[in-house]
Amino acid sequence: MAKKFRGIYAALLTPFAGDEIAADKFRDNILKFNEYDLTGYVVLGSTGECVSLSDEESERLVRTAREAAAKGKAIIAGTARESTRLTVEFTNRMADLGVDAALVRPPSYFKSKMTHEALKKHYLAVADRSRVPVILYNIPQNTGITLEGKLILELAGHPNIMGLKESSGTIAFLGELSRRLPADFSYLLGHGSAFLPALLMGASGAILAVANAAPGLCVKTFRLFSEGRIEEAAALQLDLVPLNKAVMEIYGIPGLKYALDRQGWYGGPVRPPLLPLEENGKAEIDAQLRKLGLIG
Amino acid sequence: MAKKFRGIYAALLTPFAGDEIAADKFRDNILKFNEYDLTGYVVLGSTGECVSLSDEESERLVRTAREAAAKGKAIIAGTARESTRLTVEFTNRMADLGVDAALVRPPSYFKSKMTHEALKKHYLAVADRSRVPVILYNIPQNTGITLEGKLILELAGHPNIMGLKESSGTIAFLGELSRRLPADFSYLLGHGSAFLPALLMGASGAILAVANAAPGLCVKTFRLFSEGRIEEAAALQLDLVPLNKAVMEIYGIPGLKYALDRQGWYGGPVRPPLLPLEENGKAEIDAQLRKLGLIG
Amino acid sequence: MAKKFRGIYAALLTPFAGDEIAADKFRDNILKFNEYDLTGYVVLGSTGECVSLSDEESERLVRTAREAAAKGKAIIAGTARESTRLTVEFTNRMADLGVDAALVRPPSYFKSKMTHEALKKHYLAVADRSRVPVILYNIPQNTGITLEGKLILELAGHPNIMGLKESSGTIAFLGELSRRLPADFSYLLGHGSAFLPALLMGASGAILAVANAAPGLCVKTFRLFSEGRIEEAAALQLDLVPLNKAVMEIYGIPGLKYALDRQGWYGGPVRPPLLPLEENGKAEIDAQLRKLGLIG
Amino acid sequence: MAKKFRGIYAALLTPFAGDEIAADKFRDNILKFNEYDLTGYVVLGSTGECVSLSDEESERLVRTAREAAAKGKAIIAGTARESTRLTVEFTNRMADLGVDAALVRPPSYFKSKMTHEALKKHYLAVADRSRVPVILYNIPQNTGITLEGKLILELAGHPNIMGLKESSGTIAFLGELSRRLPADFSYLLGHGSAFLPALLMGASGAILAVANAAPGLCVKTFRLFSEGRIEEAAALQLDLVPLNKAVMEIYGIPGLKYALDRQGWYGGPVRPPLLPLEENGKAEIDAQLRKLGLIG
Repeated sequence: MAKKFRGIYAALLTPFAGDEIAADKFRDNILKFNEYDLTGYVVLGSTGECVSLSDEESERLVRTAREAAAKGKAIIAGTARESTRLTVEFTNRMADLGVDAALVRPPSYFKSKMTHEALKKHYLAVADRSRVPVILYNIPQNTGITLEGKLILELAGHPNIMGLKESSGTIAFLGELSRRLPADFSYLLGHGSAFLPALLMGASGAILAVANAAPGLCVKTFRLFSEGRIEEAAALQLDLVPLNKAVMEIYGIPGLKYALDRQGWYGGPVRPPLLPLEENGKAEIDAQLRKLGLIG
Repeated sequence: MAKKFRGIYAALLTPFAGDEIAADKFRDNILKFNEYDLTGYVVLGSTGECVSLSDEESERLVRTAREAAAKGKAIIAGTARESTRLTVEFTNRMADLGVDAALVRPPSYFKSKMTHEALKKHYLAVADRSRVPVILYNIPQNTGITLEGKLILELAGHPNIMGLKESSGTIAFLGELSRRLPADFSYLLGHGSAFLPALLMGASGAILAVANAAPGLCVKTFRLFSEGRIEEAAALQLDLVPLNKAVMEIYGIPGLKYALDRQGWYGGPVRPPLLPLEENGKAEIDAQLRKLGLIG
Repeated sequence: MAKKFRGIYAALLTPFAGDEIAADKFRDNILKFNEYDLTGYVVLGSTGECVSLSDEESERLVRTAREAAAKGKAIIAGTARESTRLTVEFTNRMADLGVDAALVRPPSYFKSKMTHEALKKHYLAVADRSRVPVILYNIPQNTGITLEGKLILELAGHPNIMGLKESSGTIAFLGELSRRLPADFSYLLGHGSAFLPALLMGASGAILAVANAAPGLCVKTFRLFSEGRIEEAAALQLDLVPLNKAVMEIYGIPGLKYALDRQGWYGGPVRPPLLPLEENGKAEIDAQLRKLGLIG
Repeated sequence: MAKKFRGIYAALLTPFAGDEIAADKFRDNILKFNEYDLTGYVVLGSTGECVSLSDEESERLVRTAREAAAKGKAIIAGTARESTRLTVEFTNRMADLGVDAALVRPPSYFKSKMTHEALKKHYLAVADRSRVPVILYNIPQNTGITLEGKLILELAGHPNIMGLKESSGTIAFLGELSRRLPADFSYLLGHGSAFLPALLMGASGAILAVANAAPGLCVKTFRLFSEGRIEEAAALQLDLVPLNKAVMEIYGIPGLKYALDRQGWYGGPVRPPLLPLEENGKAEIDAQLRKLGLIG
């Protein structure tokens, strides 16, 4: 059995015009991304400011992505809500729009009560009732909840739980799991500075925010790895680290949007409470893009 | 200028029948709470499993509370969403239903970007546009975000930011702020095991989940304090601690709901991902209720 | 059975001249503290930069304190080391110098292995072999280890474990324990901004760093509380908060030393890695001391 | 300029007989390790229970290691103390015994005061005065202190600061630093489950506790990597993960000692407060050793 989810997925940004979503810009961006050898797109991920959107806005983005994505490109939608009921409802609403899988981060508000058992019941209930495959999502830096290895191994036995997006980027954690997960379960790294090491340790691909800004570089790193040219791939991975750090960690989503604007794509503003990028951030991101040959 | 928010508010539970909200049970509970000397009610707070509800369910609960609450009882609604825009929209939707104030916890998903400046802009924008007074809400155990003293002092200057619910229960933090806040700003403790010490250090009242289970005891503690009978109040506070710990910390919301069921009110089930109460929890809560003379 | 440890203890600073300990200055300070109604002194506590000292320096400080302390003043020494063996050895070395009790924080380097069982065995072994009473010490902000209520209750049953210094300052935690601890077990708060609320909730006293800078104020707060004049005591407690925050939290030990220098006592420099106080810190501490009438 | 520290170093265990150090067993272990292609040994590291030892015991272990180590094997000693003064003194005491470098974790007791500036001054002072090269040591899981990339880059400019042992195992962090550090600065990973990915991303070697239990496997992984046989190396790395997790994370030092006992070397007991290994741990470690062909 092959892994269902392989290669590089871009975790798409949500374009705004003012404080309204700009579906046309979203479509234009996707049309450009279609030219790269990306496996697919994540809509309504953290990079997409999903938590800042209404259900109606979310629906509109997914429709747009489904229409704009080139044939064969997978659409994965972030569909988590804080209760099991709302998560199932929203997941199936997205399934009806044609997404290929649902990316589901854990409920996190009642932190101290999100025990192994609570998380397990939640995910099993979602997987039982979801009309599309479920991909688990570990992003403790945002949720304050860590999906433990034991839980992931147990959940991976469910026929409708097909993968994990792991955004803490802990390579040792991957090493502990990669040989113990089912053969068709996909481990996708969600960290742009460590996906090549992850591929080496058994990941089948990556879901990357930085792929918005440097899709070609991400895709080429994956291809070199697939061809066994690991040292060349490692050099590209190291090339990518400073840009990834700048647009993800230091400046965040407004930085990433700026990196798109600079390359002739549409980044635009973020929705508050996120703050706009400051001037010094622009200079640093310019420098990183220039070093990678992405702008002149 | 007097404090607007004083005395004891019950942070109401949300009753469910199966997985549906039970508005009739909610009304019945409120009618019983009306018999106590509570200042008012918080609807859609953490205790109310607010994050597990749809907007429509939330609206229905607020309508019910507004209708059932005795004359003069304040209704405060939890109205936070993750973006500024959605928070403003939902706050004013609740304002239109007649709530007296909005309790607004900070956005928390983009944790590392919720800087002093981001939180300040968010709260000021919400306060500017909200048609009801805003009460800040510090509950780091659930959000992973701490509202710093400096931020609270700055926000307290806004004419529509009228109070703080502080649920970490840190008395030293209150001591740092209580003399520096505006005279009409209300500091309300959100911790049932330390509200008497908080009153002593300058809080004007408390918003308590445990007031669902022991409204009389909470109200009496406040009254004794108001009469200067502080040592008697402290003894009652210590009486309340074991029940508060059992229903809040150890067993959580399902434990609190059970404590209502045992007293002839309606607690009922929780909505997943919260888990139901286990048998040993029932025995311990029974013991605590019995010790307080709340059940026979 | 009465509590053995009651009232206010000063957690003494360690004076340095250059990078050498200044035992003469230490003696002079104690002679001045003897004029206040303090119950006793803690030597080699966190405030005393205990971890920065050699065993020989530590021994010299304890000798000096024993000689300089007025008759009837208790000397409590911080004696923790990272292994059980070294803790017992050093505790008894201090016992031989005449200390009245040993204040023992938990081992903390092997954090993930300091389970309930490991900590329990450690403390029981130390208590069994110590020739002086042991006082547990909870200071998670420095150790990264929290002594849980259950552990404290179990250890409190040992005849040679006579108290707890609790420096997180969590009043709810005290509320959970105060009625369940043995009658002769002393709960001593180690937080200068919340000791009055702690007394109200059952603490028998406090070990305070701020008592170096404002011994009179600390002692008076305790006396007012003991006389049932609780609201007056609360007002003094609130008076003390800004100085306590300045010298403990914001500026730390160099700030506290400066506050002594300003009052004609000896503070002097800190030992690196602690940094000296910056100029703006001096101005703020001056302002706090002036507001309390401690300097002209 | 070549990296001074390359290849695999074993972070040696400290053997005890009862609660006394067993220098003879320590020597015997080293004589056996000499047969492997390890670059050298770390004495008085975390794995060596350094914080549980007296200065005299520490000295005796270093003397023994110096004598027993085969010609050309480097000896690195852990020499950190909580103050700058004590660290310098102990470092030079070890230098006098002939160690090749000092491994220095940051002071950690005064956590909130260990700012960039405080840590920088501390390390510069130690490096200025140490008679042997200093290796920085990042182990936040034990110290609660993280050495930030910016600090490491600044310190790396000091001629006597020659390397970093990085035990959090965060590969993205390595990626950020590896091209920006001086050519002769050595980055050594201190995590047995991720050292191969680290080598790929620019580390020059590793200091491994698991090398006590499986020196041959560690050394072979490094050799394969050096020969460009990266996929074979990755397979060995994955082979090693379960044993590393068992002896480091799940069971810790007592588990690692047991793994030595089972192979005919000397592990022996740990010193309290560490607890002895439980029976189920023995069975699991046996299983891991057997799977790797290390026991029959």
